[in-house]
Amino acid sequence: MARSETVASGPGSRALIVDIIRSAGPVSRVELVQATGLTQPTISNIVRQLLASGVIRESGRTPSTGGKPRTLLEINPTALYAVGVQLGFEAMTFVAAGVGGGTVARQLVDGAALDDPQQVVERLAMQFRVFVDTAGIPIDSVAGVAVVVPGPLSPPLGTMFRSPTLRQWEGFPLAATLGELLPVPVVLDNDAAAAAIGEFWTRRVPRTDTFATVYMGTGIGAGVVIDGALYRGASSNAAELGHLSIDAEGVACSCGNTGCVERYAAPAAVLAEAVATRCDFLGLDLEFTAESTGQDFDRLARAAVGGHEAADALLGRSADRLAAAVVSFSNAFDLDSVVLAGPSFAIAGSLYAKAVRTRMERASFARRAHGVRIEIASNPRDSAAIGAAALVLQSSVAPGHGPVLSA
Amino acid sequence: MARSETVASGPGSRALIVDIIRSAGPVSRVELVQATGLTQPTISNIVRQLLASGVIRESGRTPSTGGKPRTLLEINPTALYAVGVQLGFEAMTFVAAGVGGGTVARQLVDGAALDDPQQVVERLAMQFRVFVDTAGIPIDSVAGVAVVVPGPLSPPLGTMFRSPTLRQWEGFPLAATLGELLPVPVVLDNDAAAAAIGEFWTRRVPRTDTFATVYMGTGIGAGVVIDGALYRGASSNAAELGHLSIDAEGVACSCGNTGCVERYAAPAAVLAEAVATRCDFLGLDLEFTAESTGQDFDRLARAAVGGHEAADALLGRSADRLAAAVVSFSNAFDLDSVVLAGPSFAIAGSLYAKAVRTRMERASFARRAHGVRIEIASNPRDSAAIGAAALVLQSSVAPGHGPVLSA
Repeated sequence: MARSETVASGPGSRALIVDIIRSAGPVSRVELVQATGLTQPTISNIVRQLLASGVIRESGRTPSTGGKPRTLLEINPTALYAVGVQLGFEAMTFVAAGVGGGTVARQLVDGAALDDPQQVVERLAMQFRVFVDTAGIPIDSVAGVAVVVPGPLSPPLGTMFRSPTLRQWEGFPLAATLGELLPVPVVLDNDAAAAAIGEFWTRRVPRTDTFATVYMGTGIGAGVVIDGALYRGASSNAAELGHLSIDAEGVACSCGNTGCVERYAAPAAVLAEAVATRCDFLGLDLEFTAESTGQDFDRLARAAVGGHEAADALLGRSADRLAAAVVSFSNAFDLDSVVLAGPSFAIAGSLYAKAVRTRMERASFARRAHGVRIEIASNPRDSAAIGAAALVLQSSVAPGHGPVLSA
Repeated sequence: MARSETVASGPGSRALIVDIIRSAGPVSRVELVQATGLTQPTISNIVRQLLASGVIRESGRTPSTGGKPRTLLEINPTALYAVGVQLGFEAMTFVAAGVGGGTVARQLVDGAALDDPQQVVERLAMQFRVFVDTAGIPIDSVAGVAVVVPGPLSPPLGTMFRSPTLRQWEGFPLAATLGELLPVPVVLDNDAAAAAIGEFWTRRVPRTDTFATVYMGTGIGAGVVIDGALYRGASSNAAELGHLSIDAEGVACSCGNTGCVERYAAPAAVLAEAVATRCDFLGLDLEFTAESTGQDFDRLARAAVGGHEAADALLGRSADRLAAAVVSFSNAFDLDSVVLAGPSFAIAGSLYAKAVRTRMERASFARRAHGVRIEIASNPRDSAAIGAAALVLQSSVAPGHGPVLSA
């Protein structure tokens, strides 16, 4: 967290150095001094730690140009891996990534559904071993596992407060229980927050960018990255875009607020509107059950993209409402760029991006100072799982900079 | 800006050390090492700079407890002053503050009204000399002047893009013009942003708090302080609370957005509603001119506080709408505390605070994790001017941490 970045040779500096080596490497210590403004001793000290941990390695020397040749440093892509798990109602996604940032393995298994949390966690632990094994990753090179879920969370406790789809998980000690079953550190985090740090790592977003990911799965969330660190806020519940109200006198939300954008733009809301507007009679073969929300929304999205007028109108309304919230959100943070991530953008992402871009160009408060880039995640369905792995990597490369890993 | 805080012995660290000395001082170098986690050499280096600049001074030694007695460091309250000027349509407020944080002088003169910007700036420069003279502050101990106005701004250019009340100032090189007339550095900033850093300095807000000031003058703005630094965003136009939409299908706003809270809750909106609901016939003697907005709103507020039913209902609606926006804003930043600042809260502040507190307790997304403190500025009318002075002080003790002073 930015919180710790004022400390000299602290996690912020360590993360900064790893970011520079990853994006610009191989680089020399002298180049790091120039790029960071950190003192020579501080750089040497941090580089020593990173070499010892195996995160980076020396990669030869600069050709002697008269002066003393310099040892170059680069990321050691196979030294450290992290596993990200997105725990959902319909599916569980496993992703393994290396410090280089690339995804090295991916697996999709059954979700939590309505099963007992204890059993699901045991299944997850078992699945983890199979996954790591199949991927051929030596277990002792796995820095940790991050399980991401729809918030809100109580990070110190590693539990969920409330989840729209995983109700029976409220208060369940997920991180602790899984930690006892696995030989590696475990952390629990929010899917949207993870997606944000994942996009930052994999897209090589400039460190100076004020960057946000708008995440839409079953619900709507967001994550903001400031100075290369996830913005957490007072209780790691920051960036709750889904509960930004777009109508103060609007419908009541389970969160206690009224007019939350999630109640108008999220898949469940769109499907409810489909029922109301009788799109269920338009041959889209939707099931309209809580369990089928994801598939139903995908069908609707496919239809809309395919030119189905009613479906297109429904998604258009959803996109306009989301766009309204994103403009307010962007006005609050004064963002440089926004990436749309999450399974609900997998098919109709471009439709949503267009709506957000259009409203942003018309209504963004700072548009005369700068535009706001609106893009779609390269892999919307896996954004959260990939981000979970990135969270672990960032926090193991720079302890304290990311979430706390409970060993 | 937080942006620069990753640099080791940089502005972030310097600001941190000054904050600690100001709030906990007198302290020894060893205590600073313990409190910051910075290395001994870094601390010595920064302390040397601060002693040289006169910002801090040595204040004797710790009683020898066997070990070597330690030199104590404290703020040098008379070494450095800053002047904050709030430039408004109806009035210009001058405030002088010392590094200690306290206000040492205050003066109110005529505002810019519809006068020619060049003439107003010349008047401001002349007034500045009188003010500093009267306050008995040696000109060479004035670190700089910050002029704050309703945003949005183009900080690098030191100009305004657009201002609801100061239209003819759009594009006028305020900072540069004033800089040529004054023997001290000049900076232009946003009133709400300044108020936030001012409250942070004067209230001794904990550095770890995620803290925001909701500012209501003619318009509505906000400033967010993260890790003791003002959050700027991509273009220093962050935290535009006034243009957070509370009704996506609502009234059009001059900013290009629809349903901006400013169009429902700000003084002009309340007065328009007063006209519509014929409160102008309720003996409040309101003038209903653009120039009289401030006084009219104060009259309305006085009446409401005094039990005038129609006035109370009008302000109640304004407060509810502002509260709705503040909840969304707080959900975005996950705030610890909010301070209501600005002239419009001078009389009916408690009425607004109550409305925000009520909605926050019901609808804040993270309320189960933590409450959000809602308070009123100790001096709402001067918040922006006091904050302007604080901005200068912060940027002069920690160059790069605050705004750039154009000498």
